[in-house]
Amino acid sequence: MDGAAVTESVEAGDGVESRASASRARLLQAAAQAFADKGFHGTTTRDIASAAGMSPAALYVHHRSKEELLHLISRSGHEVTVALLRAARESSDDPVEQLRCAVQDFVAHHARAHITARVVNYELAALDPEHLAEIEEMRRDIDTTMRDIVAGGVAVGAFSCDEPRLAAAALLSLGIDVARWYREDGSWTPEALGEHYAALALRMVGAR
Amino acid sequence: MDGAAVTESVEAGDGVESRASASRARLLQAAAQAFADKGFHGTTTRDIASAAGMSPAALYVHHRSKEELLHLISRSGHEVTVALLRAARESSDDPVEQLRCAVQDFVAHHARAHITARVVNYELAALDPEHLAEIEEMRRDIDTTMRDIVAGGVAVGAFSCDEPRLAAAALLSLGIDVARWYREDGSWTPEALGEHYAALALRMVGAR
Repeated sequence: MDGAAVTESVEAGDGVESRASASRARLLQAAAQAFADKGFHGTTTRDIASAAGMSPAALYVHHRSKEELLHLISRSGHEVTVALLRAARESSDDPVEQLRCAVQDFVAHHARAHITARVVNYELAALDPEHLAEIEEMRRDIDTTMRDIVAGGVAVGAFSCDEPRLAAAALLSLGIDVARWYREDGSWTPEALGEHYAALALRMVGAR
Repeated sequence: MDGAAVTESVEAGDGVESRASASRARLLQAAAQAFADKGFHGTTTRDIASAAGMSPAALYVHHRSKEELLHLISRSGHEVTVALLRAARESSDDPVEQLRCAVQDFVAHHARAHITARVVNYELAALDPEHLAEIEEMRRDIDTTMRDIVAGGVAVGAFSCDEPRLAAAALLSLGIDVARWYREDGSWTPEALGEHYAALALRMVGAR
């Protein structure tokens, strides 16, 4: 929620709820930055609270634990990628357009949200078992959607590809690894990077 | 150094030196595993010493700090990748063979050494500034070699590729991200993975 939206809600009379929601958002952002900088195990709840301008006690008003923050960051990150890949698969009947859209959006997202995306992909092992199981289910959804797009293209002769499963893994790797090296002050916008990588992806699957 | 080599050295009369070298190797291995599991900032020297079967004091006989261990792991990991990419560039006059060899060896290495490779690529920010400068120099060497191979192929008409710089980044990403997901009990040996990814790489650069 941005500043203007917060002000509006306060004027509408639900100020307490809005302030709580703004605090939660600030804590999530501070947690993502801290986990990306120092890793989950290297971050204390004190680090997170102080980066969000709160006391450690105030953090516990909003979140039960450091792991709960990691789980929320991980779940919302995966919700975005699950949704964008599904939307790409539904975007057209043409597998070429599906794959172009999938890689372009997946790569652009990993550039744009590179700090959160590093946490989402590198800190899985720090999740509690039941949270990890939930996230792994979402990751299987991501793998399956990308694999379906590739296999669908092979099935109608639009792509030629010996190992669709491995090609799908490689396509996802291209996007995920962008989050590792992407910097805002580099030469590429997220959108330009997405376009170039989509062209590479079409070559990888031998698109007609 | 393996067990047989250690025994041999002891018989040859340089037992103290050999035992020290075996201890240092054990500490490096324990440190790499701990950093991969819990991150650099989440790992204590006590964790490392105890995983290597030593006291924290014994660790300091061999290494000045936790950062020194990270630096040694990082340097030797980068030495391997610098050397294998240079060897690939020298392996043939044919850019197709150079790129095949580069991607095959780079990918197989990241599968085989996946634990160390995660530390090498994800914990750079934890290095002291002078160590980081040294490692960044090695990373520029890696980038340059891959870019030279791609640009060399474009120059002689063996590859067709609009953005050799970006293609080189994508090719390195394929290998680096293998370390994130590779598991020994999966379906692919490091060598088979290297071969398949080399074929994808040749498609990405539009090899004749």
